[in-house]
Amino acid sequence: METSHTLQLLTTLFLIFAAAKIAAEIFERFKQPAVAGEILAGIVIGPAVLNWVQPSDITTALAEIGVILLMFAVGLETNPRSILAVGKTATSVAVIGVIIPFILCAGAIWLCPPLLGQPVPAIEAIFVGATAVATSVGITARVLADLNVLSHKASRIILAAAVIDDILALLILAMVSSLAQTGGINWLRLGFTVLTALGFMAVVIFAGQRVVQKVGPKLQKMRMRDPLFLCAITLCFGLAWVSEYIGIAAIIGAFLAGMVLADLSDQSHLLHKTESAVNLMLPFFLVNIGMQVHLDSLAHPGTIAAALLITVLAVLGKYLGGYLAARKQPGRIPAQVGMGMVPRGEVGIVAAQLGLALGAINQRIFAVVLFMAVATTLIAPPFLRRLFAGETDAATDETPLLRVE
Amino acid sequence: METSHTLQLLTTLFLIFAAAKIAAEIFERFKQPAVAGEILAGIVIGPAVLNWVQPSDITTALAEIGVILLMFAVGLETNPRSILAVGKTATSVAVIGVIIPFILCAGAIWLCPPLLGQPVPAIEAIFVGATAVATSVGITARVLADLNVLSHKASRIILAAAVIDDILALLILAMVSSLAQTGGINWLRLGFTVLTALGFMAVVIFAGQRVVQKVGPKLQKMRMRDPLFLCAITLCFGLAWVSEYIGIAAIIGAFLAGMVLADLSDQSHLLHKTESAVNLMLPFFLVNIGMQVHLDSLAHPGTIAAALLITVLAVLGKYLGGYLAARKQPGRIPAQVGMGMVPRGEVGIVAAQLGLALGAINQRIFAVVLFMAVATTLIAPPFLRRLFAGETDAATDETPLLRVE
Repeated sequence: METSHTLQLLTTLFLIFAAAKIAAEIFERFKQPAVAGEILAGIVIGPAVLNWVQPSDITTALAEIGVILLMFAVGLETNPRSILAVGKTATSVAVIGVIIPFILCAGAIWLCPPLLGQPVPAIEAIFVGATAVATSVGITARVLADLNVLSHKASRIILAAAVIDDILALLILAMVSSLAQTGGINWLRLGFTVLTALGFMAVVIFAGQRVVQKVGPKLQKMRMRDPLFLCAITLCFGLAWVSEYIGIAAIIGAFLAGMVLADLSDQSHLLHKTESAVNLMLPFFLVNIGMQVHLDSLAHPGTIAAALLITVLAVLGKYLGGYLAARKQPGRIPAQVGMGMVPRGEVGIVAAQLGLALGAINQRIFAVVLFMAVATTLIAPPFLRRLFAGETDAATDETPLLRVE
Repeated sequence: METSHTLQLLTTLFLIFAAAKIAAEIFERFKQPAVAGEILAGIVIGPAVLNWVQPSDITTALAEIGVILLMFAVGLETNPRSILAVGKTATSVAVIGVIIPFILCAGAIWLCPPLLGQPVPAIEAIFVGATAVATSVGITARVLADLNVLSHKASRIILAAAVIDDILALLILAMVSSLAQTGGINWLRLGFTVLTALGFMAVVIFAGQRVVQKVGPKLQKMRMRDPLFLCAITLCFGLAWVSEYIGIAAIIGAFLAGMVLADLSDQSHLLHKTESAVNLMLPFFLVNIGMQVHLDSLAHPGTIAAALLITVLAVLGKYLGGYLAARKQPGRIPAQVGMGMVPRGEVGIVAAQLGLALGAINQRIFAVVLFMAVATTLIAPPFLRRLFAGETDAATDETPLLRVE
């Protein structure tokens, strides 16, 4: 009726959804991960190739809802105790996995100005390092769920490490942004953010579970339609909002909301309903990552070389960090953990956009970082699939994502 | 991470969802329809009262997705034969229900300039008539589904009439817009739109079902996750897009997509998954209607009087039209049909926005029409509830919307 606006929205919805599902089907047939296919679908229909759909406020919002629901569903399958049990290993995976890629990527940008045809200021190198630290837990979580290995020890280490790593990345980003804006770091404010984040997580995990155990069974007495699912979604949006408000990422709040509900007796009922919502919204998240790519900003050969170099270092840095920190774990766990931390995805993209907005990095470095963020999300899934081969159960439509015990 | 944008989105998501669910719960406790509660929640948190959330491109997009999914779910429960069986009655309900409110509302605006303190040009009166003709099938469908009476004959007449009525309303709107823009009507183009719309519906209903019966069972062999649900959603977005493209509303395409799948053996499985998606997205549609209201544009007593007058005429006109056209039906059916056609909701709002954009109506008339559109969606549900009382089955969370046989 109000033609142009609605029609444009519908074109976007249909093209993104159809392209994502066609790509997912093709990739699965060739035994490749659907996640990589859906990101590639975004590159193909987005500005990089066909330019049928462009990223907009609306695609970004749908993407955000998609990843929030995904992390909520992953949280629903994650028992808090199972996460606390791997806390020590996960913390070192996160810390070492932040330090190594930061040094490698910042160092490379700083030491290799010839590739970019211009000297690179220290702040720019530091910003690139910062964009290289945050794992995109969304991508890995989806691959692990698709492989039905969310209950494995390696998966639990990855999930816990990715949450800690996200918080570390946000702190580093806050430091670097403040450095770029004012030339200094407000340690007091930073310390306050750390304390707020830790306090929030502790309150949610320890108090939240008790409240849920008491309130949960009473929800079914409510009169509204489907009270359990709709109250759960309200909690998910609510904690995502609080997380973002106090300076940690929305997806952490969504993950915590899920985790708090993981012990509920109706958990499987809830998980089934959430999965439909995830399946509906997640394609927008994956396709939106691919749509960020602009091939023309990589046209300069030096830029391509720099992008490849940074990508290799970003992969190696995370892989080594994870591998070293988890080296005492048996079997393939060190390699699984290392590879599981590799995808940067939307977190790296958001950090790069912030750097560009602050004037801390230029367009060319932005293209380099964007390339790295998308490439790492495409590289990791096939390796993860191989590393978990033989450990996976046959996933059928009726089996929900596995439960973490 | 990219603070302001994401935080604003999360605030919007959380406030809309929480307000809608709190209102739904309160209304259900007082035996009032949840739909009315959720629209009122939008008035309360929107610009009219608290101004915590404002309508934006994003809320509009989420609202659109919500109503598309709702109409898809309603279609899933609607057997095409059951609709064709009531075709004759439904057509006269639609036609008479378009003529009477058009004449009443356009006539009132034209004859009562004193209320608005200025003479009203004929085109403005005609536009008001046009905004008064289109039933918001979304609101009625949700109320009928909540009451578990979608299978009743009255419900089938209402659904079929609302689809026809939507097409008539779009044709009238196209005529009126062209009249406002060029002073004349392009009959050739209008005839082309009518033929395209009828052809599209015929092809989808007759050919679509056969294709689905053949292709449907093969979908489960696909490798992607949850192939049936995701292919169904792709079909839904696809037909919604085509409908909008050829000039009929997106929700008609979504409804047809659902109807084509209604005979599938996995229909109940599909309906369950779709319901979760509807429950997630529909609050955005209902709250968004309420958020359109600005009380200050009604501040002039003449405007309020005109708004009340137009609302009364809009209600009476639709009720009488439906009642007269269905008068040969037994029992309470004529009254149920009449009341079921009353809500105007988003269709009236969109028509009014178009009129404002074209300069065909002024701000004051816009406020009048907006009031009418929202008021009719609030008035109808409690009456519908009463009119269907005693004919409803107990709805539980686990019972899907009833099947139309």
